Amino acid sequence: MSDRTPTQQVSDWLTALGGALDRGDAAAAAALFGDDSYWRDLVTFTWNITTAEGNAKVREMIERAVLPAKPSAWQLEGEGTEAGGVTEGWIRFETGVARGYGHVRLIAGKAWTLLTTMTELKGFEEHKGSTRDKGVEHGVHPDRKTWLEQRQQEDAQLGITTQPYVVIVGGGQGGIALGARLRRLNVPTVIVEKNERPGDSWRKRYKSLCLHDPVWYDHLPFLPFPEHWPVFSPKDKIADWLEMYTKVMELNYWGGTECTSAAYDERNAEWTVEVVRNGRRMTLRPRQLVLATGMSGVPNMPSVPGMETFKGDLHHSSKHPGPDNYTGKKAVVIGSNNSGHDICAALWEAGADVTMVQRSSTHVARSDTLMELLLAGLYSEAAVKAGVTTDKADLIFASVPYKVLPSLHAPAFAEMKKRDAEFYGRLEKVGFRLDFGEDDSGLFLKYLRRGSGYYIDVGASELVADGKIKLKTGVEVDRITERSVVFTDGSELPADLIVFATGYGSMNGWAKQLIGKEVADKVGKCWGLGSGTCNDPGPWEGELRNMWKPTHQEALWFHGGNLHQSRHYSQFLALQLKARMEGIPTPVYGMEPVYHVS
Amino acid sequence: MSDRTPTQQVSDWLTALGGALDRGDAAAAAALFGDDSYWRDLVTFTWNITTAEGNAKVREMIERAVLPAKPSAWQLEGEGTEAGGVTEGWIRFETGVARGYGHVRLIAGKAWTLLTTMTELKGFEEHKGSTRDKGVEHGVHPDRKTWLEQRQQEDAQLGITTQPYVVIVGGGQGGIALGARLRRLNVPTVIVEKNERPGDSWRKRYKSLCLHDPVWYDHLPFLPFPEHWPVFSPKDKIADWLEMYTKVMELNYWGGTECTSAAYDERNAEWTVEVVRNGRRMTLRPRQLVLATGMSGVPNMPSVPGMETFKGDLHHSSKHPGPDNYTGKKAVVIGSNNSGHDICAALWEAGADVTMVQRSSTHVARSDTLMELLLAGLYSEAAVKAGVTTDKADLIFASVPYKVLPSLHAPAFAEMKKRDAEFYGRLEKVGFRLDFGEDDSGLFLKYLRRGSGYYIDVGASELVADGKIKLKTGVEVDRITERSVVFTDGSELPADLIVFATGYGSMNGWAKQLIGKEVADKVGKCWGLGSGTCNDPGPWEGELRNMWKPTHQEALWFHGGNLHQSRHYSQFLALQLKARMEGIPTPVYGMEPVYHVS
Repeated sequence: MSDRTPTQQVSDWLTALGGALDRGDAAAAAALFGDDSYWRDLVTFTWNITTAEGNAKVREMIERAVLPAKPSAWQLEGEGTEAGGVTEGWIRFETGVARGYGHVRLIAGKAWTLLTTMTELKGFEEHKGSTRDKGVEHGVHPDRKTWLEQRQQEDAQLGITTQPYVVIVGGGQGGIALGARLRRLNVPTVIVEKNERPGDSWRKRYKSLCLHDPVWYDHLPFLPFPEHWPVFSPKDKIADWLEMYTKVMELNYWGGTECTSAAYDERNAEWTVEVVRNGRRMTLRPRQLVLATGMSGVPNMPSVPGMETFKGDLHHSSKHPGPDNYTGKKAVVIGSNNSGHDICAALWEAGADVTMVQRSSTHVARSDTLMELLLAGLYSEAAVKAGVTTDKADLIFASVPYKVLPSLHAPAFAEMKKRDAEFYGRLEKVGFRLDFGEDDSGLFLKYLRRGSGYYIDVGASELVADGKIKLKTGVEVDRITERSVVFTDGSELPADLIVFATGYGSMNGWAKQLIGKEVADKVGKCWGLGSGTCNDPGPWEGELRNMWKPTHQEALWFHGGNLHQSRHYSQFLALQLKARMEGIPTPVYGMEPVYHVS
Repeated sequence: MSDRTPTQQVSDWLTALGGALDRGDAAAAAALFGDDSYWRDLVTFTWNITTAEGNAKVREMIERAVLPAKPSAWQLEGEGTEAGGVTEGWIRFETGVARGYGHVRLIAGKAWTLLTTMTELKGFEEHKGSTRDKGVEHGVHPDRKTWLEQRQQEDAQLGITTQPYVVIVGGGQGGIALGARLRRLNVPTVIVEKNERPGDSWRKRYKSLCLHDPVWYDHLPFLPFPEHWPVFSPKDKIADWLEMYTKVMELNYWGGTECTSAAYDERNAEWTVEVVRNGRRMTLRPRQLVLATGMSGVPNMPSVPGMETFKGDLHHSSKHPGPDNYTGKKAVVIGSNNSGHDICAALWEAGADVTMVQRSSTHVARSDTLMELLLAGLYSEAAVKAGVTTDKADLIFASVPYKVLPSLHAPAFAEMKKRDAEFYGRLEKVGFRLDFGEDDSGLFLKYLRRGSGYYIDVGASELVADGKIKLKTGVEVDRITERSVVFTDGSELPADLIVFATGYGSMNGWAKQLIGKEVADKVGKCWGLGSGTCNDPGPWEGELRNMWKPTHQEALWFHGGNLHQSRHYSQFLALQLKARMEGIPTPVYGMEPVYHVS
C-alpha cells in the first residue's frame, strides 16, 4: 500500500468503493471505512444534511440511502495529496438523478472522512458558459415579448394569477442568496421583506457597523465581490451590493412587505401565506415556505421590574439607532458579546459615558489573529493565490465533521491564547471574564453551538482594558428605576440609555409568531449541534438543527447563517426545493427527532 | 537561430533590445526590427496612442520617446509560441515611472509587431487583492467618519467646496467605465448625464433593442458579467447592470444633469463647465474635461424640403420610440444600416407596413457567422476555456496594427461571403446593395473607418429577402409632403411615419455644441484612421483620431467606442489623467496634425 502514490491510493479506494456499491455489497463498502469514520452527505444520497458517525452508522447509510440512489462513476479529480499520514483527494460521482462532488480523507487506506455533495440535478443543470441563454431570439417573432416585458409580466402575475413555488420570508443576505440559487434553477420564487429596499436591514443598524468576517469569506453566489472590495465591508456598502445583486439576479423581491401569518394546507399540499404588501393584503399559496429571517431569531428582551418606568431610552441592541444622540450621556449596555462591544465602542467614540455589564464570560478573539490562525488557509488573499477558490474553501470546511472540528480548532485557539497573552492579561486585570469555549475549542464552535457568546475584537477590547469602557461583571440586573439600573449586588448606575445586548432566541421563534406554537414545537429548536454545552443541550445531533434541510413540518425550511453558510448551503436547499418541484423522489434519510422545542 | 525554441527566441530578442536600450543605442535597437515593422505604444513611452510604422519611424520613436522614458527590465512572461513562421510572446517591462505589459511578433528573429501598454504608474498602483483597502479602521477613532459619511460628504462638497479633477460629460457605458478606472486611481471625478438614471440611454431606446456584440466582448472593467449572463443582453438588462455598476463602483454620477457649455481657462489651466443639475445651475472647474457623449456624435438629420409640413411622425432613429403605435400604419425608414434594419424589423413585427430606403450599399454580416469567423478566437466561450481571458483578448486585438488588420480580416470575410452565399444571393435578388467594405476587409474595418455602413444581421435581412420589409434602393429623398415621401426617381410612398436612420456626425460635433466651433475645429474630426475610404479621408493616421489620447485642445479628451474599446482604452485614458494629476511629466510623442475638421 505504501508504495502507491497518494493519487493511486485515492483512485484505488474509489475503484473499490465503486465496485462494492455496483455489486450492492454494503459490507464491502463499509469495510473501506475506518472504525472511527464519518460520511457527511449534503443531499446527494440522503436528501438531507447529515453525518453518519462511526463504521456502523456509515454502513447503515450505505444500505438505506446510498445504494438506493444508484451511485456510479466515482472518480478522482486531479491529484491526491498526503500530509501527516492523511491522504486526501477531490472526487466526482453520480447518482440516478444527480451529479456530485466531494472529498475523501484516507488513513492507512481506509476512509476517515468522506464528504459527498450534490452539485446538480440531471436534466436541470444551471445555464452558464456555453449553455447560457442566448438572451434574444434572433430572427423575427411577431408578438415577441422583450426581456423587460417578460419580467414585468412575471411581476404583475406573481401572487395574483400565478403562485410562486417558493416563498422566502426575509430578504436579508440569506433570502437573497437562496433567491439567486432558485432563480438559476428556474424555481418561481417570491422573497418578502419588511424593509423597503434590499440591504435596509444593514442600513438601519448603528452607523459604525461593518462586517467582522473578511471579504473572502463573504462572497454571494455567482457574483463575487471585485478584487478591490475592502476587507471589512462597511454596512452601507454591503447594503448597496445586496440591493444591486437583487436587481441583476432578477429576483422577485417584495420590499415593504410583511408576512403576517402562514398555515399549511395538508390537503392541497400548499401554504397559505398572508402578507401585507405596501399596505395591501395579499395571500400567497406556495408549495414551499422558507424562513430566512436571520440566524438571530426573535430578540431576547428580558423582562426587568421597573423597565416601563425608565425615563431615558431603553431598547434591545437590534433596535439601537447608534450613538449620535448620546454624547455626554450615561449609557449602560447589558451584554458583553459582539453587539454589546460594538455598541459600547461606538458610544464611547461619540463621547458617551459607557458601562458594559458582563453577566457571563465572553470568548474574545482579536480579528487579525483570528484571520491569521483560523481563516488564512481557506479565506484569504494567500488562499486565493494558492488556488483555494471560494468553492473549494467552502467544501474543505464542509469536509470536516462537526465532531472532529473541536480537535482541529483547539490548537489554533491555544496558539491564539499564547500570541495574545498580553492582551488577554490586560482584560483580565480589569475584571473582564474570558473563556475560549467550554472545551477551549474557540470561536467557531461557540458560533455553531449557540450562535453567540463571543466578540471578534476590532478595537472595543482596548477600551475595556484601558477602563474607557467601564465594566461591571458577574452581576445581573435586579431592577430599573426612572433614571438608573440597580444590580443584584445592590449597586446602582445612573443611566440615560439602557441597551439590552442580550441576544436572540431560536429561529423557530419566528415560526411560532408566523405559523403558531404547534408547528414551532413540532420542528423544535433551530441551530446548535447537541454538544451539551451552554445553550446547546444534548443529545448529540452532529449537524445544525433544522438548517437547510427537511424539518418535521412538511414543506417548511429554515435558511440562514453567516455569509459563508448562506452562500454554500443555499446551493443544497435550492436543489432540494427544485427536486420537489420537478417531482423527483426525495426519500429523506437520517431525520433527527426533535429533542428541544427552543 | 532556428535551433532556438520560441521561448528562447523571444528571450534572446528581449535581451538584445534591453541591452541596446541600456546603452542608449537606438540604431542597434532599431536593427532588431524588420523593415516592415510596427511599434504600437499605448501611453507607456509616448504618452499617446500611436503606432510607428516601418523601421525608420520605429527608430525615431526609440530615439525620441522610448529612450527618454528610461526603459528597463524587459522579460518574457510564460512561454513563446510559434506558428506559420511567426514567433510570439507576452512581455513585461518598466519605465522610470511605470510598469508595462505587451506583446511581440518576430519573423526570422526580427520584430514584425511590438505592442507596449502601460499597466500602472509606480507609486500609484490600484489597491486590490493583498493591497485592497481594509474598509474599516480597526481600533477606536473619535470623530471617525463612516464609509457612508465619507461618501455623503464627498457628494455634498463636489462642485461646491471642492472641485473634481475630471469632469466626464456623458454617463453611458463609456463614461461609466472611465469613471470606474478613475475611481480606482483615486482621481476625483464627476460624471454628468442628462438622463436620470444610469442605463437610461438604453432604457429609452426601442423595446426590441439588444446588444449585437456577444457577452464575452462586453464586460466592464473590474466586474465581469456572471457566467449565466445571456449572450446578447436585452437593453433593459444592460441598463440595470450599468446602474448597479455605477453604484457599487462608488461613482459620482450626476443624473438629471445637463452640460450646457464649457470653456478652457488657459491662465488657470482649468475648465469652466456649466451644468444644470436637477434644475439648478452649477459651475464645475475641473482640470480635465472628457467628452464621453457616445461614439455616435450629434445625430445626422438631413434637411429635406417639406419636412415641416409632414402630418405624421418624423424623427431621427435616435429618437424613435419603438413600433407600438404603428400597427397597420405605413412606415418609411430612410437608411439601411444597423439602426435602419433594427427599426424596420421591429415595425414589421408589430404589424406596420414597412419600406426601407437604401441610399448606398450596406455591409451585412450574419451574427452567428461573425461570431464564428471573427470573434471565436478571442471573445467566446471556447476562447475563455482556452485561457484567453478578456484582458488577453483585448491585448491580442490591440497587438495587430490597424495597417495590418485588413489583410487579417479579408480572408475571414471572404469565407463569410462563401459560407453565406445563398443568403447574400437572396438579398441581391430583391435588389439589396451589398458590400464587404471598399477593400473587402469587412465589418470591423468599416466600423473603425467610419463607424457605420453595416448591419450585423439578427433577423431583419430575412424579412428584406422575403419582401416583407419592402425595399427602395439607389434613390435619395427629394421632398416630403403632408403624407408621403417623394424620391429622386419621381416615385412616391405614402407614410404615417418617417424615420431617418441616417447616422451621426463626428464626436467633435459635441465639442462644437458645448465649447464652440473654434475648439471643435482645433481638435478636428474624431474617429477614422485616414484610410481614404468613404467618410474616412486620408492621409493615413494609423490610429483613431482623437480617441483616448491628447488632442490639440489642452486638457480636452474624447472617450467612447464599443464595449470592448470602452473597457480597454479607459485603462489608458485613466492613466494619462492620473499622471497629470500627480504631476508626472507626460511628454507626448507622435501627435497627429488635424487634417479634417469633421
